[in-house]
Amino acid sequence: MTKTRLEAFSDAVIAIAITIMVLELKVPHGVGWEALRPVLPAFLTYVLSFAFLGIYWNNHHHMLHAAERINGKILWANLHLLFWLSLFPFVTGWMGENRAPLPTAIYGVVMLLAAVAYTILQAAIIEHHGPKSKLAAAVGGGAKEKLSLASYVLAIPLAFVHPWLSIALYVFVALLWLVPDRRIESTLNP
Amino acid sequence: MTKTRLEAFSDAVIAIAITIMVLELKVPHGVGWEALRPVLPAFLTYVLSFAFLGIYWNNHHHMLHAAERINGKILWANLHLLFWLSLFPFVTGWMGENRAPLPTAIYGVVMLLAAVAYTILQAAIIEHHGPKSKLAAAVGGGAKEKLSLASYVLAIPLAFVHPWLSIALYVFVALLWLVPDRRIESTLNP
Amino acid sequence: MTKTRLEAFSDAVIAIAITIMVLELKVPHGVGWEALRPVLPAFLTYVLSFAFLGIYWNNHHHMLHAAERINGKILWANLHLLFWLSLFPFVTGWMGENRAPLPTAIYGVVMLLAAVAYTILQAAIIEHHGPKSKLAAAVGGGAKEKLSLASYVLAIPLAFVHPWLSIALYVFVALLWLVPDRRIESTLNP
Amino acid sequence: MTKTRLEAFSDAVIAIAITIMVLELKVPHGVGWEALRPVLPAFLTYVLSFAFLGIYWNNHHHMLHAAERINGKILWANLHLLFWLSLFPFVTGWMGENRAPLPTAIYGVVMLLAAVAYTILQAAIIEHHGPKSKLAAAVGGGAKEKLSLASYVLAIPLAFVHPWLSIALYVFVALLWLVPDRRIESTLNP
Repeated sequence: MTKTRLEAFSDAVIAIAITIMVLELKVPHGVGWEALRPVLPAFLTYVLSFAFLGIYWNNHHHMLHAAERINGKILWANLHLLFWLSLFPFVTGWMGENRAPLPTAIYGVVMLLAAVAYTILQAAIIEHHGPKSKLAAAVGGGAKEKLSLASYVLAIPLAFVHPWLSIALYVFVALLWLVPDRRIESTLNP
Repeated sequence: MTKTRLEAFSDAVIAIAITIMVLELKVPHGVGWEALRPVLPAFLTYVLSFAFLGIYWNNHHHMLHAAERINGKILWANLHLLFWLSLFPFVTGWMGENRAPLPTAIYGVVMLLAAVAYTILQAAIIEHHGPKSKLAAAVGGGAKEKLSLASYVLAIPLAFVHPWLSIALYVFVALLWLVPDRRIESTLNP
Repeated sequence: MTKTRLEAFSDAVIAIAITIMVLELKVPHGVGWEALRPVLPAFLTYVLSFAFLGIYWNNHHHMLHAAERINGKILWANLHLLFWLSLFPFVTGWMGENRAPLPTAIYGVVMLLAAVAYTILQAAIIEHHGPKSKLAAAVGGGAKEKLSLASYVLAIPLAFVHPWLSIALYVFVALLWLVPDRRIESTLNP
Repeated sequence: MTKTRLEAFSDAVIAIAITIMVLELKVPHGVGWEALRPVLPAFLTYVLSFAFLGIYWNNHHHMLHAAERINGKILWANLHLLFWLSLFPFVTGWMGENRAPLPTAIYGVVMLLAAVAYTILQAAIIEHHGPKSKLAAAVGGGAKEKLSLASYVLAIPLAFVHPWLSIALYVFVALLWLVPDRRIESTLNP
């Protein structure tokens, strides 16, 4: 029961965050091609954030599927993750409007803190189920997680060198999770 | 479990997209009949998009009902469909504000890509269940799907001839799915 | 399964409509009591619409609870009801901003059409379950429903005489459903 | 069934309220650090309201978990609670934009009325289950509840002395519920 409701609440928050992001895609006032030009980068940022939230939903889904019981600590760790995910529409709107250094760095900060929150949630679930649980085995070395965290840490200062370097790193992380390349996976998680 | 959560997440995204579209229906500042005039076309566009999202929810519901198991590919194909559906509020807002060629064509592009995404999702589910599954039999020739796709492909360039031609095609597709005319169905899917 | 998903989708749409209405309650730019003055009527309209959506959710809940099976007609009748409910944020925002005749009348039109849609949905469910079903018996004479419909029909033209007459009728209908006065009920449904 | 749907509807409303609050966090138009300055207090208010809604979701979850049956009174008491929770985005937006006396006091009024609504809901559930039920025992003296209510009552007039005094009290209440300090708990609920 508890787990079901935790999943339902998380699904709802992620579904809402993923959907209301579209409200940051301002309907242009003009009707020509030039009216679409400012929409394009905002749209691409939207695609990126949609991919990230989709990845989070997918991973959250698998992690909770492996979990058998929930305690208070897990509930709060989950809310903490949802907090950072709920900020996606804000940072997507800001970075989408202009690929300036600060908004691009802040996007990375929210990404990083969401990833940290996910790691905390995972640790809380593993702690509750024991180191020999199915979930602990499934997580393994967590090379993808570490590479993602490192990319965010790198992307934040790089935004002040050139925003596109950071954006390239964000796209890299998204592809890392989206592309199910078994070779890469087996190299990273041997 | 997995299927239930996939359905719940999809329901949530479609429900949110269908409901926040109303936020693109700007509350008029005036209070007379003339204040309602710009609202009317926006409202009719809203009706059209509501019908489309309702049709998608309905069809998605039946397709998932026939599905028995879910894999990673289906999860991602489903997210891909939800991505295009999540753009409905944006294109509804833009086309609703002015029936100009470009917004009308873009509306058709999103419609087309949503329909393509639905076809991909269907193919992924059939592939996972095998060509002799209940679902593969239920889909049949897919005449309605093909007619819809053709209508969108036609409507996109036609928007630059005259937007109302495209809008007429969109309304035609919506009616095709809404009206349960058994004669048409049996002619199309003999 | 089908019924569960229909309920879940309806719950989601009603929950979203009831919650995003608050976005029409514009955050005042000032910080003094005079900044609150225009918020007050908008807030009272919000209370009224919240009560109506709550009543719809409650009644929808009881009606679906009594239903045992769902067919395509019920699915579409339900979507039709959700369509009118999804317009509540729009009409609430417009009437809330100014109690002028036209917005007040339009509010009544949406109320009326939502009530008609509810009646159609109820008829579709009863038709599917047969005149001797539990639901058909529970509905009874439907005096409250008739009184509500009559009030809306009366309120729409009255808005052009004086908006407050219509608003008084809307409040009357809301109280009719909220107050569980057994005496009135037994008089109306003897 | 009824309880499940009540939980699902409440989850949806709380999830939407917690997520659309982010829309009150206006995307800055500038791109420098000075553009972030007005966002910071709005962000901190967002954190505070997110924590409160998270606490409500958590407590609501535990309370409903302990409940075995639902009646009409509980349904309405629950809607009444959801009404006050649905106003969180509005008061968060207003107080977040400026820490002026009136918005800060109104924030406290909504907090207070939500807490009162929660108490009413709890009383309705206990009444329905009897004074010897599991829930009645779990509630106990309710020292935290009383301390929270007292803090809100104190914070409302204090906002007109200095808004930060009230905000400190709101933060105190949030911490009271977030920090699972067993010593404090055992002192308060011996």
